[in-house]
Amino acid sequence: MQDLEIEVLLITNPANINYLSGYDGYSFYAIQGLLVQLNREEPIWIGRGIDANGARLTTWMQEENIKAYNDDYVQSSTKHPMNFFTDVLVELGCNKKRIGIEMNQEFFSHRCYIELERDLPDAVFTDASYLVNKIRMVKSEKEIEYMKVAGKITTKAMQAAINQIEVGVREADVAANVYHHLISGVDGLAGDYPAIIPLMPSGERTSTPHLSWSDKKYKMDEVVLLELSGCRNRYHAPLARTVFTGSPSKRYKELSEIVTEGLHVILDFIRPGVLCEEVELKWRKFIEKTGLVKDSRIGYPIGLGYPPDWGEQTLSLRQGDRTVLVPNMTIHVLPAIWLGQYGFEISESIRVTDDGCETFSDVPRKLFLK
Amino acid sequence: MQDLEIEVLLITNPANINYLSGYDGYSFYAIQGLLVQLNREEPIWIGRGIDANGARLTTWMQEENIKAYNDDYVQSSTKHPMNFFTDVLVELGCNKKRIGIEMNQEFFSHRCYIELERDLPDAVFTDASYLVNKIRMVKSEKEIEYMKVAGKITTKAMQAAINQIEVGVREADVAANVYHHLISGVDGLAGDYPAIIPLMPSGERTSTPHLSWSDKKYKMDEVVLLELSGCRNRYHAPLARTVFTGSPSKRYKELSEIVTEGLHVILDFIRPGVLCEEVELKWRKFIEKTGLVKDSRIGYPIGLGYPPDWGEQTLSLRQGDRTVLVPNMTIHVLPAIWLGQYGFEISESIRVTDDGCETFSDVPRKLFLK
Repeated sequence: MQDLEIEVLLITNPANINYLSGYDGYSFYAIQGLLVQLNREEPIWIGRGIDANGARLTTWMQEENIKAYNDDYVQSSTKHPMNFFTDVLVELGCNKKRIGIEMNQEFFSHRCYIELERDLPDAVFTDASYLVNKIRMVKSEKEIEYMKVAGKITTKAMQAAINQIEVGVREADVAANVYHHLISGVDGLAGDYPAIIPLMPSGERTSTPHLSWSDKKYKMDEVVLLELSGCRNRYHAPLARTVFTGSPSKRYKELSEIVTEGLHVILDFIRPGVLCEEVELKWRKFIEKTGLVKDSRIGYPIGLGYPPDWGEQTLSLRQGDRTVLVPNMTIHVLPAIWLGQYGFEISESIRVTDDGCETFSDVPRKLFLK
Repeated sequence: MQDLEIEVLLITNPANINYLSGYDGYSFYAIQGLLVQLNREEPIWIGRGIDANGARLTTWMQEENIKAYNDDYVQSSTKHPMNFFTDVLVELGCNKKRIGIEMNQEFFSHRCYIELERDLPDAVFTDASYLVNKIRMVKSEKEIEYMKVAGKITTKAMQAAINQIEVGVREADVAANVYHHLISGVDGLAGDYPAIIPLMPSGERTSTPHLSWSDKKYKMDEVVLLELSGCRNRYHAPLARTVFTGSPSKRYKELSEIVTEGLHVILDFIRPGVLCEEVELKWRKFIEKTGLVKDSRIGYPIGLGYPPDWGEQTLSLRQGDRTVLVPNMTIHVLPAIWLGQYGFEISESIRVTDDGCETFSDVPRKLFLK
C-alpha cells in the first residue's frame, strides 16, 4: 500500500477478504468488502445485515469493525450498497484519501465505481488489483497443511472416479460419487465446496475443458477428461487425469505418452530461482520435436479460492512471465491438450520446495484404460 | 433495446448468455460475452480460445458468430480480453454506436469498462443491467418443466438431509449425501450443480444464513437450517426447512409455528395482479401481531442461474416493489427469521398460476424434530 501510495484499500475479492479477515460465507453474490487502512490495526468488514453474524462468527475482528447495511440496499433500483460503503468511508474521514480498489475482478462492477466516484468527488481512486493476490503467492506452513489435506481429498475423489467410469455408466452417477468424496473428505477432515465444479466431459465434449456431466452414459472408445479439486478451509489442490473406455488409437496413445512425459520434464525442471517463462520454454522445446502445439498457458497459481475460480490470478507458466519461483509457491501444472475432436489432460498441483517441487496428490501419471 | 436506444447489447452475465444463446460452461471466471444487435439474427459469442468448442457444442449459433481470443489475453498485465471485444465491435462497424452494458453485475468489472471506453472513444455507453433478467421473469412452459424437475430433486435431497440429521452425525456427512442426491437427480434425469451450495449451519451458526457444513457433529438441542436447491439445465427450485435435535423451547416452537403459518398466509395470498409489496405487507401485518420483526425481503425471483446466485435479481417481495405478479413468474418465498442466537427458516419456490400459485417441491411445512 505504501509503495502505491494507497491510504485506504477496498477489498472485494472474496478470497482476499478471507485471507485478511478470516471471513467465510457464501454471501458474495451481495456486495461486501473490507476496508484496510495503514494506520488501523484491524480492517473493517462491510456486508449485508443478515451476514453480519457470519462475520462475527468467522473473523477475528472486534464488534466495532463489523458494519452491516440494511436489506433495502440489496438489488434495489434506488439505493446501492456502495452508498453505504461511502458512509463508512466518510465516517472514517477517508473522503479525500487515495483509495485503492480491485478494479479488475468479478466482485467490483463498473456500477460500484460509478457510485463511489459520485459519492466521493474529492477522493482519488487507484487500481489495487492483485495487490493482496501477490502476497498470497507464497504460502505459510498452515496454508500448505490445508492444501495437503485438499490434495489427499483430490486423490480419493479422482481414484473413485477412475474406478467407476465404464461403458454404460452415467456421467452424473460418477459426478455424484465424486461430490460425495469431495465433501466427506479424508481422515475425519471434511472437504469444503470447491471453487470450480468437477469438470468431466466425455466424447466430443472433451475438445473443450469447461463442460461437465450430463445424463449421458459412457460409450465404447471414448475419452473422458477429469479435472477436480478437493478443498479444505477454502484451499485447493486440483488434479487432471484422462480415462479411455476401450482401445485408444495409436495416435491418441502417443499423444497421451508425449504429454505425460512432458509433465515429468516440467516437474523435474521446477525449482526455486527458475522463471515462469523458463518452465514454459522447457515444455515447448520438449513438444516441438513431436509436432504438437499447445497455445494456452501450462500452469497457474492455486490456493485459497471461491467460485468462480480456484486460480489465484497472478503468475502464469507462459512466455513473457518473468516471475521467479520461490519455495512454497503453489501451482497447478496443466500441460493439457485440446484438439479439434478430443483432448488429453494430465496435471499435478505442486509446491515449490527448497530444491525442486513436490505434489499434493498421488494418482498414477498415465492414460487410464477401462 | 429499442426503448433504451441501444444499438448493440454486450451481455456478460452467464445466465443471460445462456438464456440468449444456450451457452453453458464453467468458464465464466474468464471474461466472456455475447453481442446482440438489433439488425442481426444471431448474437456473437466471444470467449477464450479453449472454450470456443464449448460454444460450438452448446449453442445453436453458426461458426461465423463464435469469436475466440488467444490465451495470452487471460489474466495478463499487458492485454485485456475487452481489447479483443473492441476488435470485434470495430469489425462490425459498431465503434460509434450506442452500446448497452450490464454495468451492475459481477461479470463486468470496472476495468472492463476502462478498457472499452479507451478503445472506443466515439461509442456511447449506457447501462443495460437487468434488461435480459426482466425478460426472464416470466417462464416458458419448457423452463417450468426444468424447474419442476429441479423441484423434485430438491424434495429428494431435502428429505434425505432431514432423515440423516441426528445428534452425533457430522455436518459434512449430511452435506456429502445431499450433494449425491442433487447430482444423481430423479427419474433418470441428472441434476446440475446448483448456483449456491447447500447452506446448512447448525447451532449458533444459524444466526446467519450463508454458512455451510463443517467437521462438527450435531449436538443435542440444536437448530439446523437447511437451504438447498436441485438444478436441471441450470434451472433452480430452492427450498428451506429447519430441523431441531431434541426438544425446542416453548418460545422457539412458537416462533416456528408463527413463521410457518405466515408462509401459508403468503402462499394463499399470491395470485396474478397482486403487487410484490402487497405480498410483503400481508406478511408484515401477520407477524406484527406476534411481536416478531423481519427486516429483510421475503422473496426473490428464481430460475436460470450460475454461481454465485440462483436469484434473478429483478423483483423483491418487499416494501416499495410495485412489480405486478403474472402467471409463470417463479419466486422463492422465504419468510425466514434470523435472531441474535439462532434462526428459523421455511420456504417454498412457487410458480404464479392463473388463479394462485403452486409449489415446485413437496416437503411437509413444519419444524422437524429429531
